[in-house]
Amino acid sequence: MTESIEAFDAVDIIRTKRDRGELSTAEINWLVDAYTREYVGNEQMAALAMAILLNGMTRREIKDLTLAMIASGERMDFSGLGKRTVDKHSTGGVGDKITLPLMPLVASFGVAVPQLSGRGLGHTGGTLDKLESIPGWRANLSNDEMFAQLRDIGGVVCAAGSGLAPADKRLYALRDVTGTVEAIPLIASSIMSKKIAEGTESLVLDVKFGSGAFMTEYAKAEELARTMVELGTDAGVATSALLTDMNVPIGTAIGNANEVRESVEVLAGGGPADTVELTIALAREMLTLAGQPDADVEAALADGRAMDVWRRTVIAQGGDPDAALPTARESHTVTAAHDGVLVRQEALPFGLAAWRLGAGRARAQDPVLHASGIDLHVKPGEAVTAGQPLFTLSADDDARFARALDALEGAYEVDAAASPFERKPRVAARIG
Amino acid sequence: MTESIEAFDAVDIIRTKRDRGELSTAEINWLVDAYTREYVGNEQMAALAMAILLNGMTRREIKDLTLAMIASGERMDFSGLGKRTVDKHSTGGVGDKITLPLMPLVASFGVAVPQLSGRGLGHTGGTLDKLESIPGWRANLSNDEMFAQLRDIGGVVCAAGSGLAPADKRLYALRDVTGTVEAIPLIASSIMSKKIAEGTESLVLDVKFGSGAFMTEYAKAEELARTMVELGTDAGVATSALLTDMNVPIGTAIGNANEVRESVEVLAGGGPADTVELTIALAREMLTLAGQPDADVEAALADGRAMDVWRRTVIAQGGDPDAALPTARESHTVTAAHDGVLVRQEALPFGLAAWRLGAGRARAQDPVLHASGIDLHVKPGEAVTAGQPLFTLSADDDARFARALDALEGAYEVDAAASPFERKPRVAARIG
Repeated sequence: MTESIEAFDAVDIIRTKRDRGELSTAEINWLVDAYTREYVGNEQMAALAMAILLNGMTRREIKDLTLAMIASGERMDFSGLGKRTVDKHSTGGVGDKITLPLMPLVASFGVAVPQLSGRGLGHTGGTLDKLESIPGWRANLSNDEMFAQLRDIGGVVCAAGSGLAPADKRLYALRDVTGTVEAIPLIASSIMSKKIAEGTESLVLDVKFGSGAFMTEYAKAEELARTMVELGTDAGVATSALLTDMNVPIGTAIGNANEVRESVEVLAGGGPADTVELTIALAREMLTLAGQPDADVEAALADGRAMDVWRRTVIAQGGDPDAALPTARESHTVTAAHDGVLVRQEALPFGLAAWRLGAGRARAQDPVLHASGIDLHVKPGEAVTAGQPLFTLSADDDARFARALDALEGAYEVDAAASPFERKPRVAARIG
Repeated sequence: MTESIEAFDAVDIIRTKRDRGELSTAEINWLVDAYTREYVGNEQMAALAMAILLNGMTRREIKDLTLAMIASGERMDFSGLGKRTVDKHSTGGVGDKITLPLMPLVASFGVAVPQLSGRGLGHTGGTLDKLESIPGWRANLSNDEMFAQLRDIGGVVCAAGSGLAPADKRLYALRDVTGTVEAIPLIASSIMSKKIAEGTESLVLDVKFGSGAFMTEYAKAEELARTMVELGTDAGVATSALLTDMNVPIGTAIGNANEVRESVEVLAGGGPADTVELTIALAREMLTLAGQPDADVEAALADGRAMDVWRRTVIAQGGDPDAALPTARESHTVTAAHDGVLVRQEALPFGLAAWRLGAGRARAQDPVLHASGIDLHVKPGEAVTAGQPLFTLSADDDARFARALDALEGAYEVDAAASPFERKPRVAARIG
């Protein structure tokens, strides 16, 4: 990485990939370094990204790209903790608050769970935004604070440092404006470069498929999961993935403060069945990678051990776990027009509606409205009677309701002729 | 083209082409206009260019792209001349000086031949560089001078105005650094947008194939030729193409001043057989499009009519047709090591050798050395005896010979066992 900057030629590299050739390790190292130094331009990287999207990359190329991204910045090291470390990454979905109950649950078994998170531009805020609903809670910790919290309590959710994988940051922004977001080798190396740079020794991926997921097709989600598991394994990180269904919002809360409320219910031994299912499945997977395949995760939720870790982490980060969470001034409840069974509740329009209520941000510099969101009172398969509340929209400004309701047109349906049915399991497959 | 700049979204357009979709006329018009105004960035155009290279464009898309490129700048109009106008474009080869004898030959039949040319970065200079070997000759004419010369003499070779197809200029430079030069829809629209903007009513394309051509494969050259003929026809320009063999250098001179010398020989009724073949074939094709299919082009070369037009155009542009052309101070002749038949004379290495002698430029701002070049004394199929000169390198600085000779390693061969053979015809096919 310190050889002459002119060791290779960007156009030759682009042409090789364009013509379905394989890039060498040295070419990839040179390219990422030169791109970080802005010697290779955005227009060259854009052409290459499109060629990668259309022609693919081999497993070795993806590994080399990921390692080069990691080498472009800082790398964290938790080996001095004296604990096993295990991380989780979700490709994102509607109502996905699983990090909140999962982190303390896994940490309650003596494992270190460093969850370095972002804010994102999704339908709701990122994990950090959700947690900032808690009065006093702060996302920015020094490396020393993070290390101490992992050592003393075992879990931390905090903002990722800006020095991790800077080449990926530049490429990620470029992909967004050049129609190359969907390239699986680039998605995999982007996610994994950040996760591996964060220094975990094992990693569980929650790769979502369905109408509310980034990858709507199961086959594409599976390809992404397999690519990332291979990549983590090749890079020396014990990695597995769960493929999970994202056609219906997760749990009953979509927003920020209300997602924290639902997470606390799960930590108290309750909560919606699908949120609990995902939390337990991911906790088992993480603990298996951390050497505790027989850990009784249900017991840690039932007996308050996970809740105890939750409270300690919130307090350690300046938050008050007993403080009231913000609530919205206005609400609007939609009820069933007739008796029947709820047969449809589509994740994507519910996510869009929450976003229109202010739960997510339109631009990176916008604030998130912590009290805005949607609470689902009924889940698919459940019987309802005429006039029964189906869901409630919340926002401080009731002018937001009309556009949120527009988004929900056709997104839910009560079928008078249907019989109640069991919910589908969230976890469809495991790869690892 | 004057609607709101935000009528479309560049990312949507890129994604459509990435997913093998077809772009609408309105999308293409918006895109080219937005790219010209720099509202669409180079990184977006680079990703789109790669998607076009890999996924192609329909005949309608290519036409729309070409018309949008033309609309991005000025368009010339020769309709007031009172003459038929016919233009020629060659995709470029080694020793390709055909424009020089062709322009006066065709113009001698009363047809207007506006040859707006460039300088290029090829093995030798462009047509303008070659003509600048003639003392006093100038390439830059005003539109009024060009028009007057076409009216009074019939032929002109001059520099293309910078206002023609500015969107193409920006895209052409971008393709060069992003590995997207080889996209047939983009090559075709680039060539044809400039040619159509130059205002000719008919056009003959000389599309070359073989080791010394941009398109080495015959099938690719044929695809390009067909694409351009369809495009010209769709845009209202009578267009045909000859597919010509570019495995062996054209004629006997490769350089600048020496190519002018060979051209004058052809105009005097002599010259190498293959240069004459190409000149006559292209002249016949041009005159057919201009309504004179029975024109006796050989007679116009033999009786001095073409030479007369040549001399008048040189004088009109400030040149002295009787002045001595520059000659190099140093020369190096390679001779046959033994008796035999010349069985190989590869265009590309001879082009590279001429470039190393200084006949072409390394960077756009570099000068061309007009006296540098190569003269071939023997052509493939001809018998030689030991010690007979095969070719002569010329340059002012004899330090250039070593690297030029390196380029020629293995590029020619005298086979002691071979029998003399007829040269292959240059013209392989006609499309139109």
